[in-house]
Formats: sequence, C-alpha cells, structure tokens
Amino acid sequence: MSRHQFNPTLEGLNLSPIVITSELAKQKAAWFQQATGKEFVHFHRGEVDFPTPDYIKQAAREALDEDRTKYPKSGGEDDLKDAIVQKLRDTNGVSGLTRENLLCTYGAQEALQLSFKLFEGGRGAGFSPCWSCILENLIPYEGIDFTLVPLGTDFSVDWAQLEEVLTRVQFFYLNNPQNPTGKVFSEDEVRAIAELCRKHDVWLISDETYEQIVYDGLEHFSAASLDQEEIISVFSFSKSYSMTGWRLGYLVTRQVRIPSILRLADYSQTAGVVPFIQYAGKEALTNRAESDRAISAMVGEFQRRRDVLYQGLSAIDGIQVEKPGGAFYMFPNFTELIPAELLGPERELYVVNKLMEHGVAVVHGSCFGIGFKDNIRISFSTTPVSAVEAGVRRIRQAFGSES
Amino acid sequence: MSRHQFNPTLEGLNLSPIVITSELAKQKAAWFQQATGKEFVHFHRGEVDFPTPDYIKQAAREALDEDRTKYPKSGGEDDLKDAIVQKLRDTNGVSGLTRENLLCTYGAQEALQLSFKLFEGGRGAGFSPCWSCILENLIPYEGIDFTLVPLGTDFSVDWAQLEEVLTRVQFFYLNNPQNPTGKVFSEDEVRAIAELCRKHDVWLISDETYEQIVYDGLEHFSAASLDQEEIISVFSFSKSYSMTGWRLGYLVTRQVRIPSILRLADYSQTAGVVPFIQYAGKEALTNRAESDRAISAMVGEFQRRRDVLYQGLSAIDGIQVEKPGGAFYMFPNFTELIPAELLGPERELYVVNKLMEHGVAVVHGSCFGIGFKDNIRISFSTTPVSAVEAGVRRIRQAFGSES
Repeated sequence: MSRHQFNPTLEGLNLSPIVITSELAKQKAAWFQQATGKEFVHFHRGEVDFPTPDYIKQAAREALDEDRTKYPKSGGEDDLKDAIVQKLRDTNGVSGLTRENLLCTYGAQEALQLSFKLFEGGRGAGFSPCWSCILENLIPYEGIDFTLVPLGTDFSVDWAQLEEVLTRVQFFYLNNPQNPTGKVFSEDEVRAIAELCRKHDVWLISDETYEQIVYDGLEHFSAASLDQEEIISVFSFSKSYSMTGWRLGYLVTRQVRIPSILRLADYSQTAGVVPFIQYAGKEALTNRAESDRAISAMVGEFQRRRDVLYQGLSAIDGIQVEKPGGAFYMFPNFTELIPAELLGPERELYVVNKLMEHGVAVVHGSCFGIGFKDNIRISFSTTPVSAVEAGVRRIRQAFGSES
Repeated sequence: MSRHQFNPTLEGLNLSPIVITSELAKQKAAWFQQATGKEFVHFHRGEVDFPTPDYIKQAAREALDEDRTKYPKSGGEDDLKDAIVQKLRDTNGVSGLTRENLLCTYGAQEALQLSFKLFEGGRGAGFSPCWSCILENLIPYEGIDFTLVPLGTDFSVDWAQLEEVLTRVQFFYLNNPQNPTGKVFSEDEVRAIAELCRKHDVWLISDETYEQIVYDGLEHFSAASLDQEEIISVFSFSKSYSMTGWRLGYLVTRQVRIPSILRLADYSQTAGVVPFIQYAGKEALTNRAESDRAISAMVGEFQRRRDVLYQGLSAIDGIQVEKPGGAFYMFPNFTELIPAELLGPERELYVVNKLMEHGVAVVHGSCFGIGFKDNIRISFSTTPVSAVEAGVRRIRQAFGSES
C-alpha cells in the first residue's frame, strides 16, 4: 500500500444516488418555483417534518442544567437501559431482558453498522427492495457479500427462494416496517422468517426503525419477542419521536455476548453516546402520556397523507400501487407508463426525470436493489396533505390521461 | 465462519486495563473511606472535573429552541466548519484551509479511529509511552501492525531509532501534548518529526487533543501549520472546553481527499454529528472572550495542581520525575523503590497495589506500551490541590523515608 493508496474499502465508498437526487432536487426546486410561482414537492426525503416534542427537548435542557456532560458509561447509561427494557416489555411484548441484552448507539445506523461488522467479510442477505443505505454504505463498509431476495410485485415473500438463499449466508437483514415499500411484515411472516433462519443457522438482523409508524390499527410484531438467541433487533428514536438529528438508537438481543463484544467496538469508534442525549431518550420512553400523544398525532397525520396519496395514485391508469401498512413510503410501479424501448440508465431515470420537470422529486427504484427498476419511492414524511395533493396532480399531469 | 464465531477483530478486543483499575478503585475507595474516614484520591482518571462553561450549554439550549434537531449535514455543518477554520488560524497559526480540509466527528476518538482506518491492516508507529486507548482499542480495531519507538527516560526522542522505524511504516502517531507523560513536543521537535515523515513517505497523524493545556507560558505548535499534505491533525473539544461527554472533535488535513473519503465512512458509522452539539461547538470556538476566560482559569488551576504534585514527588527519594509542560498527567519512575527481585505482572502492579492500599489510585506504566513498566501515570485532572497534597502525602508514606 503506497502512501497515496488507502484502505480499499474506504476508497470504494460512494455517495448514495439519493444524495445526488437531493442535490438535483434543490437546484430544480429553485428553478421550478421561480418559473411557476408554485411550491416544489419534495417526495424524496427520509426526514420527518415534525419537530422533536417539547417534553423531550425539555429533558435535554434539564440534563444540561444537571451537568450530564461527562464521559458516558460505555454501552449506555443504566437509567436509559432500564427505560428501554420497560418500553420493550410494554410496547413490543418483549420479556426476559435486562441491561445486558442492550447496547445504546448513535442511531439505528451505528447499531446496524456494528451488527454488520460482526460478519465483516462474510455473507448476508435481505429482501429487495432494500433500504438504500444498506446497499450503498453498510455492505461495502463491512465488505459483506450480500444476496438480494426479491419480493413479488405485491411485495409478498417467495419462501422457496428465501430458504434457498438462507442455506448460503450467515445473516439475514429484515427491515420491518420496510423502507421503501411501507410493507408491514405480519407476525406470521416474521415468525416464519425467524424459523427459517433458525433452521439454517442464520442470524436475523431485524431493523425495526419504523416500529411505531403503522396504520389501520395494524400492530408491529417485534422479532425481539421471539425466544431465539440468534436475533439482533435494532430500534431508533429518530422516527418514533421525531429525533432524527439526536442520533439515538439501540440494539437488543438475547445473546448477551453481542452487546459485550459490540460495546468495545462502539467504544473504539466514538467512546459512547452523549449522556444528556441518553437522558432525553429516557424521558422520550418513560413519559408515556406525552409520547403516546405525540406519536398518535404524527401517525394520524401520516395516515391522512398516505390515504390521499394512495387514492390519487390508484386512480391513475398504468400505475400499480400497493397500500403501505407502515413507515412513510409508497413504492408504485410505472412499467406500463415507461416506453418499452427504453433500457439501462435512461429507463431507470425516466420517471424521476419526467416528474422533476413537473416539480416533483422522487427516488428511482434501482436505488433499492434488483427487480424494481420501474418503481419509484415516494416519501410523504415532509409533505403536508396539500403538498401530497399537488404531487398527485402533477404525477397525473405527467403520466395520466386528461380524463 | 460458523454462527457462533464473529469477526475475529471484534472477538479480539479487550477492556482497557485502566477500566479494570477504575473498577478496582471504586471498590477500594468505598472500603478506604469507611475504614479511615478519609477521601480516596483518584489519580487514575482522564476525565476533567470542570463543568462545561455556561455559555456553551446556553448555546445548546438555544439550538434546541431553534429545533436544530434534524439530520446533520454529512461531515459537519458549514457554520461549525467556518468557526474551526478561524480558530485554526487565530489559535494555531494554521492558514490556507477551507471547509474542505475538515471533518467533524464524535470526539477525537472517532477522528483518530477513522484516520487509523485509512491504514487498516497496515503498518504504523508511535512513541512509547503511548495513550493506552491507541494500544488497547484503535490498533486492534483497525488491525494495525504497530511499532513502538521508546522515548528516553527523560522522554527525549531517539532520532536514529525513529528514522529507522519510519522506513518500515505507513503512518506515525504523535500525541502532543502527550498522554501519559505531559511532554510538550517543541516546534523544532514537531518540525523534525514531520520532516522525517516526509523523507520516508510516512503520514503523520498528530493528536492535538491537549493543545490548550500547556504551562509556564509554553506554546503548543500544531503540525497542521506545516505545509505538508500528508499530515492529519486531530483536535477535540473535550479537554479545552470541558466537553468530554459532548463527543465533539474534528480532523484537519491539507490533503482534501481525506475528509472526502472519511466523510462517507463517518456517515456509514453514525450518519454524522448531532446538529445542536455542533452549534454549541461553534459557540465554544467563536465566543473568544468567554472561552479565553474559561480556558485560562482551568489551565491555571491545573498548573497549581501540577506544581504541588511535582514538588511533592521530587522531594521523595527514589522517585524520578519529569516536570510535564502540558496535559494533566505526570509519569514518574519508581525503579529504585521496587524490589529488584520482582518480575512480570507482580512487578508491573507493585506500585499500583501498594498505593491502592494507601488510598490512592494510579495507572501502571505497562498500560502505555514498552519500556516504562516501572512508571505510573498520575492524573491531576479531577483532584483539587488539597487532594493532590493528600495524594503526595500518602505516596510518601507508602514509599518515602520518614524523614
């Protein structure tokens, strides 16, 4: 390795195409708003447009008053861990855990990165479509040989193909509720996936970031509730409590060796999570009256946006759309509306580019793995109902018949 | 790799012996205070006992009021980076840098970990004694083959040995001011080390965490001020602004490829540093009246503790002690006071154990590499002058003649 060549893993990392879309959207938004006098519709963002609830910010202020500003306890403060244990019991139906089963991290991001690092240079798998950050960042960062198992066009599981892949890997990544489809895997599906993992000696890494964002009275079923040691469940404060920038998350597993090993890895990377942020996280979990109110208001609003979006897209001929049960994404298919002769990158970007001209930014399906190049991801996490309505109108203008 | 075997790098990480010392000290402290009615002396801690100055906490509160709680800009917010550029110019005499030369991280820890990751699986070197976290955490975490270059008993550099080692490695780690010796490398020494690195195509990773903590009117000379692309300087808010738990730091280099590469690595690990903490960091740097006052009060107090400690130890026959020019550590040698027949672990822990019985916790020299097994590290960062005096008295009781 010469002085001008670094670790090839680092040299091989790339900016996510979503970031590139975001940059392009910024430019187009300015142009569009100037040219038309109308607001650009940002359907491409994974951010949440609700502010962090006041009671959580207030807890952070109190922790600053109390000078909770010294080095954190490695792996997480006891009072946050106790609050997590109780939250898992009350909210997720997960019993039999103690502080030893937990590791507090900088967001679900670090919890997932460390979980993937357990298998550095090894083999993993996950469904396609798949959260782009897994594909663009974590897989190359940890040198994982990753196999994608495509869901059906209706996002159903091909159980035979899944089992075949599980015979060849060390871990399976499940994102439930799922980015980018909004699919909520049912309890039966989660149990069946975990059972196949057990059968083939495969670890299940269950990313439950969107656990609280489910619609129509659906309930999120946590893989952490299963009595199976080889499961790592990853949770985040980002979406549930509008705390994206606080960078707070945690992982949970019945195999106590994992937090013990990863605590040292976490220490090596960052020396642990900021104590006054952990204190605010504890308050987010334990003030149930406030948190229930904030979550239910947020989910109610997201559900209204989803309904408007779903009705609107369903009414446009040629768009195939599944109604998402959770998260804040929709992943419609545009195959019938893309000229058949288009191939390659031109095809992949056809819908995105056309919508960008009409004042709408979305993310193209090929950012999320194989098999869904004719889909787009629409995020309604930062678009009030009026923006969703405008977005639907413009999609109809761009692709619909005028009837 | 079976399901029960993980990444061997992770399996190979161990708790630092300093953590073990800390745990033992906690138990002993309780016992000692109960038995004697006196306060235990905590000379083993790397924490700072000053609270974070109010003006910085106030900035964090304001940032919360302003809802700076959304996903951070990858690699650091522009306003923090601008403040860092100006601080480097005004405080460190570093010119010719822009935002592109910087990466904001979770403490110096993450900046160093990412810098070491550039050379993952490669070869590095550094002086012995060496900050224990480098030896215990970062070297195994990044799989570095690391060569220690022992300083002399007076902590002087053996230039011939240094140059010989530099012919065989890719990077050299310099900690200035240095943990555990408190040595401040002079401008001439830093220039000479950098020049040898340049001559042998070796990167210099310059850890300047203790830049502001220098005594006797000494000035810290930053390697970042040298016009040399192959230098990465790492800075921290932890010690200068009593912000250990805020986990804020940054790296600086004239080679703009480095922040560009490491920004993606940082994103993969944590998705970036909490925005309201970055805002507080900006205030720490730009409110010069407040920061000068806070730093000068803190350094004045540390210097008083150092003087009492140095005078006290110098007066004990058989202890060889160098007066530290910076940081908050002293690293005296006890060879003359350790029975010659003692060998191995028994010898390494002889002074530590004896002092622990006398109500004083220190860290044994072998935590810091080769060549200094008969030294101990005394930290005066959390011990007011009265505790330093008590500590010296007890060291004299344990080792001194009664005269």
